[in-house]
This record gives sequence, structure tokens and C-alpha cells, in this order.
Amino acid sequence: MTELALTPYLPLIRTVPDFPKPGILFKDITPLLQNGDALRAVIDDLAAAVAHLDFDVVVGVESRGFLFAAPLAYKLGKGLALVRKPGKLPAVKLRQEYALEYGTDAMEMHVDALQPGQKALLLDDVLATGGTAMAAATLIERVGGKLAASVFLVELGFLNGRERLSTAPVVSLLQW
Amino acid sequence: MTELALTPYLPLIRTVPDFPKPGILFKDITPLLQNGDALRAVIDDLAAAVAHLDFDVVVGVESRGFLFAAPLAYKLGKGLALVRKPGKLPAVKLRQEYALEYGTDAMEMHVDALQPGQKALLLDDVLATGGTAMAAATLIERVGGKLAASVFLVELGFLNGRERLSTAPVVSLLQW
Repeated sequence: MTELALTPYLPLIRTVPDFPKPGILFKDITPLLQNGDALRAVIDDLAAAVAHLDFDVVVGVESRGFLFAAPLAYKLGKGLALVRKPGKLPAVKLRQEYALEYGTDAMEMHVDALQPGQKALLLDDVLATGGTAMAAATLIERVGGKLAASVFLVELGFLNGRERLSTAPVVSLLQW
Repeated sequence: MTELALTPYLPLIRTVPDFPKPGILFKDITPLLQNGDALRAVIDDLAAAVAHLDFDVVVGVESRGFLFAAPLAYKLGKGLALVRKPGKLPAVKLRQEYALEYGTDAMEMHVDALQPGQKALLLDDVLATGGTAMAAATLIERVGGKLAASVFLVELGFLNGRERLSTAPVVSLLQW
């Protein structure tokens, strides 16, 4: 990939220790979002990173994925479909559970979020173990769409989430 | 206001009965978001509706507010600050409680989400009773910013939420 427009703004991503629990170093993107030039750079970089991919719609994962998926869809003139946390979607939907370190969580998608065969670009802020992304990818297929690629602002490479999504291209702007 | 680019796409906002509880007619915007032309129209309409206002940053309210605030900030080259549900923000933050029909809820904002005196455009999808928006407006002032205006895709006028936000302009694209 060519150099990122985002590069001068990377110091705006700050590390918050012990969130959401002790021992975790949380990467906080809020200072980056608060800078208009940085926000523009990250969305433009995402658009450049997916320019070679063939897709019809952007799928945003609640909540932080919405912050990148919505402007990217807007910029590209694509539709935006949502993968949401349980209980948020009002109409007929499917539910996909996934394993956490302790217990399970779930994501949901409206059954009509995608048209049959529609090619979906999955977008979230961080790829960690890939549990949430894998659940979202499964929902995309279950509602009749096709996963075109999975795209992330940040990939935590040491957690190997990429391997679980390898049926389609995996693109990340930043690797840590 | 001049005619909305969004007008041809209004049938894409569907009414789902009895969500989130019996008797409520929920306005579901997901079919509108899924249409790339409709998404572009609504963001362009929001940009036109706020063009006369003086502000530095867009403040998005979790979660559906993010879907409109992020593309609007991107389009206008502004920064995006977040008002989030409790427990989501990692750094030093303030909490603002507000009354629900039964009990209370709360929203949070990082103390450094706004710079001192920064003029904030508050953006959410729906203005109902104004409880959430009022909490967000209070947080904007508590972290040192100034509420420039409150902007909504849809205003449920019969609930009079507008009155609670009247210290600054209130703008809505659609009134129901």
C-alpha cells in the first residue's frame, strides 16, 4: 500500500491502560476523530485501500464500525447495511452468537439488510481475535449476501484474527 | 427550507409496530441507509440545513447518531466528538443522567472531547422527548464547549422535545 494520508495523525490514537479491564492496552481513536483533517485522511485512506475491490454495499459493525462505515459508504455512493448488538434492530432479523473469553455474545442483522447475492464490504475499527467480524461475516452470508472483503482501521496481528476471515480479502490500514 | 433531495426516498423509512415495546410505532431508517442514493441525499440535505450555522465540530450521539454525524463531519471537514452510552469511553469522562418514563439512563463524554469554547453541532437521528439530546447538550457545556445547534433527521413534534433545547437553534429535516 502507498503511504497513508493518516500517517501524520497517528499520534492522535492514544493508548489507555487497563480498559475495559486490567492488563488491556486500549487504543482510543476518539482524539483522531475529533480532528477534522485526521477524520478526512482516514476515510480517504480507507477508500483508497478498497478501490481495487468489487462490492455493492458497506456493512458497518456497531458501534465504532459505524463511525468509519457511514462516511466511507457516503464517499463511495454505496448503501450502508448494519450489524447490530442484540435487541437494537426492530424488524425481522437473524442472530449469530460467538465465543468470548468467558461466555458468548451475539450480533444481529435484518433479513432484508442485503439483496440476494449483493457483495458486502465488512468494516470495523479493530480486528482483534476476529470473533465479532466472523459473526458479522456469517450474518452477511445467512441473509443472502456475499462477503467481498473485511476491512479494518487497525489490525492486532498477534491475535491472528485474519486467519478466521480468509475466505475473502482482509485489508487493514494499520498493523500493531 | 428548500425541497429535500431526500424526498423521493422517504418511502424507505418504514414503520415497525410494537418496537421496542407494545404500542410504539418505530421508524426504521435501515432501508434508507441501505440505498446509496438515499444515504447520499440525507447527508447532503443535513449539510445544506446547517450551512447557515457557525460551528467547529459535530457531536454524534450513540449509536444511530453516529450514522449521520460521521459522514456529515467528513463532508464538511469538521472533527467528530462522541457522546456514548455508559462504560464505552476509555479515558477520563463525565456522566450525565436523564429521566426515562421509568427510571433513569445516562450518557458520557470524554472531558477532552471538545476544546475550550469550541462550538458543537449536536446530531442525532430522532428528536422525541429530548431527554437524550438534553443530556448530550449538557455534556457539551460541562466539558467546556458551546452548543451551536441541535440537528435531527426526524422530529416527533407532538412530544415537544424542541422546547427543552431552545437555548440554541433546533433543526430537523423531517417533522412527524
